[in-house]
Amino acid sequence: MAKKSKKAEQRPTGFSLGPSWDGDVTELDPRATPGFGGKKADGKERLAARAGDLGELQERLYAAHHDQDDGRSVLLIVQGMDTSGKGGIMRHVVGDVDPQGVDITAFTAPTRAEKRHDFLWRIRKHAPEPGMIGVFDRSQYEDVLIHRVHGWADAAEVRRRCTAINAFEQELTDAGTVIVKVMLHISRQEQGERLMERLERPDKHWKFSPGDVDERAHWDAYMDAYTRALRATSTKNAPWTVVPADRKWYARLAVQQLLLDALRGIDPSWPEADVDVDEQKARLRETMG
Amino acid sequence: MAKKSKKAEQRPTGFSLGPSWDGDVTELDPRATPGFGGKKADGKERLAARAGDLGELQERLYAAHHDQDDGRSVLLIVQGMDTSGKGGIMRHVVGDVDPQGVDITAFTAPTRAEKRHDFLWRIRKHAPEPGMIGVFDRSQYEDVLIHRVHGWADAAEVRRRCTAINAFEQELTDAGTVIVKVMLHISRQEQGERLMERLERPDKHWKFSPGDVDERAHWDAYMDAYTRALRATSTKNAPWTVVPADRKWYARLAVQQLLLDALRGIDPSWPEADVDVDEQKARLRETMG
Repeated sequence: MAKKSKKAEQRPTGFSLGPSWDGDVTELDPRATPGFGGKKADGKERLAARAGDLGELQERLYAAHHDQDDGRSVLLIVQGMDTSGKGGIMRHVVGDVDPQGVDITAFTAPTRAEKRHDFLWRIRKHAPEPGMIGVFDRSQYEDVLIHRVHGWADAAEVRRRCTAINAFEQELTDAGTVIVKVMLHISRQEQGERLMERLERPDKHWKFSPGDVDERAHWDAYMDAYTRALRATSTKNAPWTVVPADRKWYARLAVQQLLLDALRGIDPSWPEADVDVDEQKARLRETMG
Repeated sequence: MAKKSKKAEQRPTGFSLGPSWDGDVTELDPRATPGFGGKKADGKERLAARAGDLGELQERLYAAHHDQDDGRSVLLIVQGMDTSGKGGIMRHVVGDVDPQGVDITAFTAPTRAEKRHDFLWRIRKHAPEPGMIGVFDRSQYEDVLIHRVHGWADAAEVRRRCTAINAFEQELTDAGTVIVKVMLHISRQEQGERLMERLERPDKHWKFSPGDVDERAHWDAYMDAYTRALRATSTKNAPWTVVPADRKWYARLAVQQLLLDALRGIDPSWPEADVDVDEQKARLRETMG
């Protein structure tokens, strides 16, 4: 009994940064399992056990808020180095809810048309509709991460973009969107092993690109860019969570918990019937043989 | 052993109409389980057992065909009367594959902007990209079904639309899309019971609309419209399947089988590596501590 109640209290939520964070991502352990004392098997069990809750909360969100002018929504933003497990989050966490209630956008390199606009132009179009869970697989943050690392934007421009991102996210939260921002945090060693696996397994070759190896030379610059971006954009209304991701099972558990918390914060209720139920039952009965 | 091999031969594929069908949907039994001799529990077990195959085939399709100019794709079109179980197909069949490989579009009543264009205008925009499984929850067929029933289009216009649909689908299949067209076929009695359940359960009230009861008065006209539409548009390259749907578990099993067959017909293979794998392994090892 004591063990069970202890388990019930566990909240695997990663490292919550909050609005005044001034730390360094390299100080956070990619193999940690903050808020969770269990092992891999316990984690997998918990993930499966809570999939139903997540599905029901999503359906309530949809039922209560879609087609509402001031309806609520959730936006999950997932950032992370190559191989950090973004795809696994989509399959094993986001994939547990009704696909009709989710709108996933993968932001790859911008097209020529997109490049002619401000960097947020293509992002704005994918802000979630009321009642929906929007998911960004990479996001506006690429423009302050890879752009800083490769010098495609100078420091002043990166600062301008961070300010623009904060204003954009404030707009969204003011309009009723709960934003969950996740950095999937892996170690350089773990990334090396995952890339090696892609080279060793013929069914993973298609995921490998030689550029992934080149980028490893910039690892420290990426961590520095992440640290700066997280400091500049972890705000009260849209804080960052660094989710240790060397253990895939933990990262999935934490993102599931963050989504559950976001939905429970909205606490959507099944809408009241806007018709007289007994009257409709009588009408329906008349049509039945 | 004999039992097992018999099971392996079962192919729950609904009623395949083929290109010269001139039957009547009302002659097809909504409670039948064509191609499957098992019960509900067997059906659920089979659905779960094959989810992994479907997921792997989808990933192969994506790996082999996305970003290819002449890449293959699958388009699943799901039609059916209200409560026929379209949402359940999305959650329990389509939901088994990586959400990043699926593009679901629910076609509700057209907007004013959409109405200013030809009926196929809004449909064309959602034809699946190479490597993707596109799914239409309702479709271009609404324009020859509800439009015929309510007289929003006269017989000549409905014929013109059927011809346009056939030409459009020919275009898609010529370009490498395998089209799977499913009518989820329920009985009027079963629909009545499902609507009653929506009225009895507070968590289902939001799905109920009094118009659903009104539409039941047109049941025979809908069946006639379906029969005419299926006759006119079940072509060699894009034939219809009528899937009995009074038993939800059977309908899901049949749609899963049809998707498996479509993907196996494409038979996507993992792409060959376009780099020298050993060379890349050596480069990667140099970056590892």
